[in-house]
Amino acid sequence: MNVQHTTDICIIGAGPVGLFAVFEAGLLKMRCHLIDALPQVGGQLSEIYPHKPIYDIPGYPAINAQELVDNLMEQIKPFHPSFTLGERVETMERQADGSYCLVSNEGTVVHAQVVVIAGGLGSFEPRKPEIPGLTDFEGRGVSYMVKNPEHYRDRRVVIAGGGDSALDWTVFLSDIAREVTLVHRSDSFRGAPDSAEKVFSLAERGKIRLLLQSNLSSVHGNGVLSHVSILGKEKTETVLETDALIPLFGLSPKLGPIAAWGLNVDKSAITVDTTDYSTGVERIYAIGDINTYPGKLKLILCGFHEAALMAQSAFRHVHPAEKLSFKYTTVNGVNAF
Amino acid sequence: MNVQHTTDICIIGAGPVGLFAVFEAGLLKMRCHLIDALPQVGGQLSEIYPHKPIYDIPGYPAINAQELVDNLMEQIKPFHPSFTLGERVETMERQADGSYCLVSNEGTVVHAQVVVIAGGLGSFEPRKPEIPGLTDFEGRGVSYMVKNPEHYRDRRVVIAGGGDSALDWTVFLSDIAREVTLVHRSDSFRGAPDSAEKVFSLAERGKIRLLLQSNLSSVHGNGVLSHVSILGKEKTETVLETDALIPLFGLSPKLGPIAAWGLNVDKSAITVDTTDYSTGVERIYAIGDINTYPGKLKLILCGFHEAALMAQSAFRHVHPAEKLSFKYTTVNGVNAF
Repeated sequence: MNVQHTTDICIIGAGPVGLFAVFEAGLLKMRCHLIDALPQVGGQLSEIYPHKPIYDIPGYPAINAQELVDNLMEQIKPFHPSFTLGERVETMERQADGSYCLVSNEGTVVHAQVVVIAGGLGSFEPRKPEIPGLTDFEGRGVSYMVKNPEHYRDRRVVIAGGGDSALDWTVFLSDIAREVTLVHRSDSFRGAPDSAEKVFSLAERGKIRLLLQSNLSSVHGNGVLSHVSILGKEKTETVLETDALIPLFGLSPKLGPIAAWGLNVDKSAITVDTTDYSTGVERIYAIGDINTYPGKLKLILCGFHEAALMAQSAFRHVHPAEKLSFKYTTVNGVNAF
Repeated sequence: MNVQHTTDICIIGAGPVGLFAVFEAGLLKMRCHLIDALPQVGGQLSEIYPHKPIYDIPGYPAINAQELVDNLMEQIKPFHPSFTLGERVETMERQADGSYCLVSNEGTVVHAQVVVIAGGLGSFEPRKPEIPGLTDFEGRGVSYMVKNPEHYRDRRVVIAGGGDSALDWTVFLSDIAREVTLVHRSDSFRGAPDSAEKVFSLAERGKIRLLLQSNLSSVHGNGVLSHVSILGKEKTETVLETDALIPLFGLSPKLGPIAAWGLNVDKSAITVDTTDYSTGVERIYAIGDINTYPGKLKLILCGFHEAALMAQSAFRHVHPAEKLSFKYTTVNGVNAF
C-alpha cells in the first residue's frame, strides 16, 4: 500500500472534539492527522449551523459555531495537524506491529499508531432527491456538496434546494459560473432572510435564473449529465442544458463504514470505557457524540474531557518507552510541549 | 436553626467548576447557592494566578485566569446564583426529608435539596508565620486575608510578605489606611516586577514604610493587637504601634472539615461514580479537582464535564415529579430554560 500520511494518531472526524484532541495529544508530544468526509473542518458546527450561537461552551456566554471552530484551529496550530478533507475512511487494517492503516474512499492511505474515532453522529450523507437515474450521474455532473467552487468556473450550474446551503452557493457561484439556476419547490426559503434577499435581488438583475414552486423531475445525458427537466406550477416542464446539478437538500448522519469495524455498537454509538474512552479494540478510541457509556451526554464539552483522558492512554502506545509526565500549561505555555 | 438561604443546590466552592455547575443546573431549572472560604469567586484562578494565561480551556488559545472567571460569571448570570463568600462550611446535616442544612464557620445556614462539593484542592488555609501568641490575636487585629479593604480606612496596618498579595495590598491600602508598613525578609520580591516597582516608588515618596531584610518577631497587645516587633538585619529590633497585622505568606490547600463528612476519601480526594459524579452518599456530589476516579485528570475542562453529568442526576432529587427533557441551547438560547 502506498502510504500518503504517517502519523502518531489518526483522528476520524474533524469536528470540535476531533480538533481539540489534537491539542491534548500535542501536549503529550503526539502528532495527529485528521480525516473528515466533509470538505471543511468543524463538523456539524461548520456544516449545519455555522452562524448559530452556542451557549454551553464553558467560558463563553455565547459563541457562534464557526467562531468556536476557528478558535480551536488557532489553539491547535502549535501542534501542526494535517488534514484529509472531503474523504471518508472506508477500511482500517491492523498491522502486525499493532499500528493501523486506514484507507479512504478516494484511496488515501494513512498509517497511524493509534486511531481516534471522533465521528460525531457519523458521516453526513447528503439527502438525495428521488429522481430516476440520478445516482448514475454522480461524479459525472451530479454532486451533493461543493468541494471546490473553482470546478464550476464558466460552467452552467443547476442548484436545487431552499436552505442556507442552496442560497449561499447560489450567491457564491453566481460570480464564478457562466450560468446559475436555482430550483426550489416553494415561494419562500428556509435559509437566512438576508441570503434569500440576495438571491431575489440577483434574479431581478438577471444574474441568476430562479425557478420557484418547481421541482427537479428528470436528468438526462449520454454518460455525462447534459440536461435536467424541471416541473413548475401547473405542470409546466422546463428542460435546461447544464454542465452540473447540485441538489442541496441537507445531510443526514449515518454511522457508515464504522459500523463494520467490529467495535461494540449500541444504538448507533460505540461503547467505551470511561477510564480512557477506549473501545475495547486495542489502540482504537472513540470520543464525542459517536461514543456511549452510562451517563453519556452528547455535549461538545463532554467530548473535550474525553479527548483529554484518551490522550493520556494513547501515549502508552505512541511512546511506549517514555514516562508520561503531567504538566499544567499555565506554567510554561504550549511551546514548552 | 435560622436558615438564611434556601436553594435547590448548595455548591461548596466557587471556583471555575463550581461556577459552571450553576449553568448546567440552570438549564435544568435548578437554582444554586455557592459558599467559598475565599473572599471572592474564582477559586485558585482568582486567588493564586489571576494574571496568568491558561492555554488548555477548549476554544481559547489563551485566556487569563481572571478573564475566564469573569466570563463564567457572565455565563451564569441568567440563573441568578447567590453567594456566601469568605466563609467555610463546617457542618452538613441530613434532614428527615433527605435535604441538607449546611452551617458555615460564621453561622450562616443554607438549606438545600442537593449538595455539590466543588472544593478544588480543599479550602485554602493561610500559611501562618511561627510567632508566639499570633493566633491569639486572630480577629483581634491579625488577619490573613483582606476581605473588606474599608475595614482598614484611617488605621495603621503592617503587612508581611513578598509575593503578589503582599505587594498588591500594600499598594491598594496605601490610599486607604492611615499608615502602611511592608515587612519582607529579602531585598527583592517574588511578585510581579511592576507591582514591586510601585511599592519601591511609594516608599521613596514616603507614602509607605518599607522594611526589607526584616522579619516579624513578636506581637503584643492587651487582648487586642497594639504592637509588633520586627527584627531587621544585624539584629536591630523595631517596635511599631499598629491597629492591624496582615501576614500574607500564601495559602496552602487543606481538605478541611470535608474530611469529616463520612465520604470515601482517597489521597485527599473524594471517590465518585463517573456515571453522575455522586459520592455514594445520597444527594451529595463531588466535581472538579476534589474528586477522584480511574483516569481522573485535575483539569478545569474535566470538571466542566463532571458538572454537566452531575446536573442530570441531581434533577431527580430537586424535581422528583418532573420528567427531564434534554434540550440543546443552540435552538432557543438560555432564556428558554
